[in-house]
Amino acid sequence: MSSPTAVADPYVSREAAQPELRPRVDPVLHQGGPAPERLSADDLRSFDEHGYLFVENLLRPDEVRELNQELHALAHNPHVRGLEETITEPGGDIVRSIFRIHGLSRLFEWLARDVRVLDVARQILGSEVYLHQSRANLKPGFKGKEFYWHSDFETWHVEDGMPRMRALSVSIALTENYPFNGPLMLIPGSHKTFVACVGETPEEHYKHSLKKQEYGVPDDQSLKRLADRGGIVAPTGPAGSAVFFDCNTMHGSNSNISPYPRTNAFFVYNSVDNTLEAPFCGLKPRPEHIAARSSFAPLEPLDRG
Amino acid sequence: MSSPTAVADPYVSREAAQPELRPRVDPVLHQGGPAPERLSADDLRSFDEHGYLFVENLLRPDEVRELNQELHALAHNPHVRGLEETITEPGGDIVRSIFRIHGLSRLFEWLARDVRVLDVARQILGSEVYLHQSRANLKPGFKGKEFYWHSDFETWHVEDGMPRMRALSVSIALTENYPFNGPLMLIPGSHKTFVACVGETPEEHYKHSLKKQEYGVPDDQSLKRLADRGGIVAPTGPAGSAVFFDCNTMHGSNSNISPYPRTNAFFVYNSVDNTLEAPFCGLKPRPEHIAARSSFAPLEPLDRG
Repeated sequence: MSSPTAVADPYVSREAAQPELRPRVDPVLHQGGPAPERLSADDLRSFDEHGYLFVENLLRPDEVRELNQELHALAHNPHVRGLEETITEPGGDIVRSIFRIHGLSRLFEWLARDVRVLDVARQILGSEVYLHQSRANLKPGFKGKEFYWHSDFETWHVEDGMPRMRALSVSIALTENYPFNGPLMLIPGSHKTFVACVGETPEEHYKHSLKKQEYGVPDDQSLKRLADRGGIVAPTGPAGSAVFFDCNTMHGSNSNISPYPRTNAFFVYNSVDNTLEAPFCGLKPRPEHIAARSSFAPLEPLDRG
Repeated sequence: MSSPTAVADPYVSREAAQPELRPRVDPVLHQGGPAPERLSADDLRSFDEHGYLFVENLLRPDEVRELNQELHALAHNPHVRGLEETITEPGGDIVRSIFRIHGLSRLFEWLARDVRVLDVARQILGSEVYLHQSRANLKPGFKGKEFYWHSDFETWHVEDGMPRMRALSVSIALTENYPFNGPLMLIPGSHKTFVACVGETPEEHYKHSLKKQEYGVPDDQSLKRLADRGGIVAPTGPAGSAVFFDCNTMHGSNSNISPYPRTNAFFVYNSVDNTLEAPFCGLKPRPEHIAARSSFAPLEPLDRG
């Protein structure tokens, strides 16, 4: 029996037999951050309303080139290919993602701490932040598979024990995003609704979910309601552009049969006031390279001017 | 030994160990058609140069509605679902395509003969024409799978015995085409190059190829060369819009995880001066609902004003 003073979890998922849409109880923008104000009031309002912000040309072409070279080298490095951080495409040995990329590459660590990225996270989340997850996605040309719709927060809450919605992601394009090479799609405004999913979480779900999602998958009707309300956007632009998006914004991407790969660096910032607890599903935590819990030390900003 | 007067097939494919790009030897526009001139000189030039022509609002909304109702009824009809004309999505029983749709539905037969469609085919192909193939594609929301890149002509030549490039397709949208619901993608200018593919054709290949293509698949390098040269287009627009495209234009489509289905009617017109011979791969012909050979009688135009 729960004590009368215990606060009920507002984001229970994968427990009921029916899916449910519930209003978000946390703010999107948090006050009192330590960072200089990097985003304008208009940008902040837009992020609050739509749950994402597209920034064209956040990185310079020479920075993009260097990051691509580094990533290419990592993806062909037999040692890196053998790590559990490295995920291959279903039915092939093409590298799809490299997790904990900031731990494997100094260049990517610097990028994660770069004030152009980090200070946006600190400003929106209103506190110091740490990296909950990092990765590079290499969605190759010709054979890149889809990522089905999901709210990251639903997974992070249920499987990682992230208590509340006070985290965000940034996807930094390292190749041009066209409408036809499987760009990130988002449902504007969806971050204000929590979609409780059906189905229990199996043991070691993460081993499969990174290739093909089967649990924590929103139902068709909920997705259609969100998309009918907010539409679907797929920001496109040159390499070096970035999409910041709230931890609860519904997103996904289609396959990529075009000859042009879609590569991006992906960082998840979580507030140091929102650190992980035990997973809400009762299972053991996912490994460190997918959900960091060995240290919640704030990231130190790096101003490379 | 071939006689000195025998004409060599300019479009041999699936015989060599290496892929090859060869120039097209047939014209794109044929003179002397029986039809009134439906396309302007500009439209004709554009079709000749790019290998496709997008026509917005070819059909009226009430016509689109009627066709959708008809198609929905067919896709839920147990008799139709049991026909070999009906193809389901891989790993599911959702209807993906219904072939020979003009034989199963009077409405779709009328559409195939409608002068707004048929006279474009007669004008470009410069002769009377018949239906080589017809179908409705229902690419459903959430789960619609990709169609990999292909030249229709490559298949029609090798597997159906269509002698030369004097055929075209029209895809008429019955739902809105968005950038994100797996629209038809084409490589402009690719119709002027024949991509000879590698790999022999297995018996009864069509039974699998309609779900997942494995033979007659262009290689990565050839595709990249064509796309680098011509780019990739994905015409989008309201339901009732149409894309006419040459039989050798390289095309495909990505998956569709959006909630919005992409449904279209698809007709292939072949010149009555280009009727089928024995398949060039030496195997027995594909069935009638995939490649018509029981009659090459010209289609009669229907002017519904």
